[in-house]
Amino acid sequence: MNYIKAFAPATVANVACGFDIFGFAIQEPGDVVEVRRIDKPGIVIKEITGDDGRLPRAAEKNAVTVVMLHLLKHLGITDLGCEVTLHKNMPLGSGMGSSAASAVAGVVAINELLGNPLTRGELLRFAMEGERIASGSAHADNVGPSLLGGFVVIRSYTPLDIFSIPVPDDLYCTLVHPDIEINTKDARYILRNEVSLKNTIAQMGNVAGLVAGLMKADYDLISRSMVDVIIEPVRSILIPEFNEVKKAAINNGALGCSISGSGPSIFALSRGMENARKAGEAMKQTFADAGIDSTLHLSGINQGGATVLERE
Amino acid sequence: MNYIKAFAPATVANVACGFDIFGFAIQEPGDVVEVRRIDKPGIVIKEITGDDGRLPRAAEKNAVTVVMLHLLKHLGITDLGCEVTLHKNMPLGSGMGSSAASAVAGVVAINELLGNPLTRGELLRFAMEGERIASGSAHADNVGPSLLGGFVVIRSYTPLDIFSIPVPDDLYCTLVHPDIEINTKDARYILRNEVSLKNTIAQMGNVAGLVAGLMKADYDLISRSMVDVIIEPVRSILIPEFNEVKKAAINNGALGCSISGSGPSIFALSRGMENARKAGEAMKQTFADAGIDSTLHLSGINQGGATVLERE
Repeated sequence: MNYIKAFAPATVANVACGFDIFGFAIQEPGDVVEVRRIDKPGIVIKEITGDDGRLPRAAEKNAVTVVMLHLLKHLGITDLGCEVTLHKNMPLGSGMGSSAASAVAGVVAINELLGNPLTRGELLRFAMEGERIASGSAHADNVGPSLLGGFVVIRSYTPLDIFSIPVPDDLYCTLVHPDIEINTKDARYILRNEVSLKNTIAQMGNVAGLVAGLMKADYDLISRSMVDVIIEPVRSILIPEFNEVKKAAINNGALGCSISGSGPSIFALSRGMENARKAGEAMKQTFADAGIDSTLHLSGINQGGATVLERE
Repeated sequence: MNYIKAFAPATVANVACGFDIFGFAIQEPGDVVEVRRIDKPGIVIKEITGDDGRLPRAAEKNAVTVVMLHLLKHLGITDLGCEVTLHKNMPLGSGMGSSAASAVAGVVAINELLGNPLTRGELLRFAMEGERIASGSAHADNVGPSLLGGFVVIRSYTPLDIFSIPVPDDLYCTLVHPDIEINTKDARYILRNEVSLKNTIAQMGNVAGLVAGLMKADYDLISRSMVDVIIEPVRSILIPEFNEVKKAAINNGALGCSISGSGPSIFALSRGMENARKAGEAMKQTFADAGIDSTLHLSGINQGGATVLERE
């Protein structure tokens, strides 16, 4: 292969109660990475679109190429030369798993270019290195679902233990991105290092309820379990109109609503596309009433994860 | 009806990672309660067997009759007279849900005597009052499974939200009760009120893993998820030989092993009765090597919960 074009979807991490352990992929948007072999050894970034010039252009500083460099080092490959183009199709610092989508598309593209020496599961830890660059910690709740698709649970980080659970067919995601920005590092920094035992128990109950609700296709249980007593009360302070937007989603048919990743995007899950749309329009209108522009995405759950779009 | 005899099974609460939210019932042992109508209004305890005279004989102080009094009050019944006999078939303060089994058998018996005015689900909160008498807090992780059977998740206490999840057919429980006693109130007292966010995340991952593992019948995932980083490290200090007994269980085929409820009983889950037996014998031998007598129970998961044994 001389040329690969790969797509990796946006993702919703945390999913209300599952801080750092839950994430799911949506169908769109997603980032696209192109890699093309060149004669001169080394990885260079040829072009980045859609980032308004904000991402680093040096290969050793950009998540998309850092993951490639890690993978090449792991495989002992020193003579490969390639040019990388990254098409950012979602905003930076949006809570939609932007850096994860770039890193995953990058690692899938280079692996395909090399004839797939590694499996999807094996690619995970390389993609996580991209997250370390972006947020300071190598979490997997965005890269996991972006790479593998579906609803993903990270049972453990050391050792890494990740698995997928089935979701009901009729589950749809609404994702509303207000035109403000939160730095992921800041969003982590404001969290307390200690949690009350009482809140830990409440959160565990909701984690158990959400897993069982998804696996049983019990929409009421999913709805009752989409409660976050630990992270949302702290992080939501950073998102103007959060409580009103959440109320609008719930009052307009959503099963539940919370912060997507570290925000500022807000997601809702609904039964059926029509409810997802109704909730989304109400959420967008609530932001608009407060003078905040926002972008609305409606999508089913992406079951396949990252894909290769073109090969040459 | 003039006479009812009811059985309620022993239970394993917490189940490693699920402090206060998980519990399951086993087939035996279990407590038996007899209620017989008498002419004189009021509830009296006629006899208690198997408790070495340690349980209170006053109806307003014993869990088994307290739950009956609560239920009668709720129903507005003031003229019922009955004599209650309680057969304790498991030791007090054992971590086998002893007080829960008595309370559940009591509430099921009196409800049956009255012609079942309440459903099983409705009986739950009355049975929880028995737990409040015994342990100082009305938790549901023993009474829930003893009443309803199966593997029970308490998603929320306020409001009470409890549901069952399926378990694989080939899952067996080993329960070893060493001949020492722990007071449930003490076992709660030594717990810290704060948990690190890191441990909360780890515990949530295991909660999600155990629910998914049970529902998928994925024994490896069940095994990997039976990890408690919050409660077991603290409470196990109260149980002599805990680490050695746990090691013996794991080394002899158990999927996982932890404290049953607040201890001192130790439970293991295994795939197949033969592994459950092998693990149990190794656990019992480990206690014996340290000079501690213990009682071994082997059982499948009880799917039905409390039952009425006789009616007259």
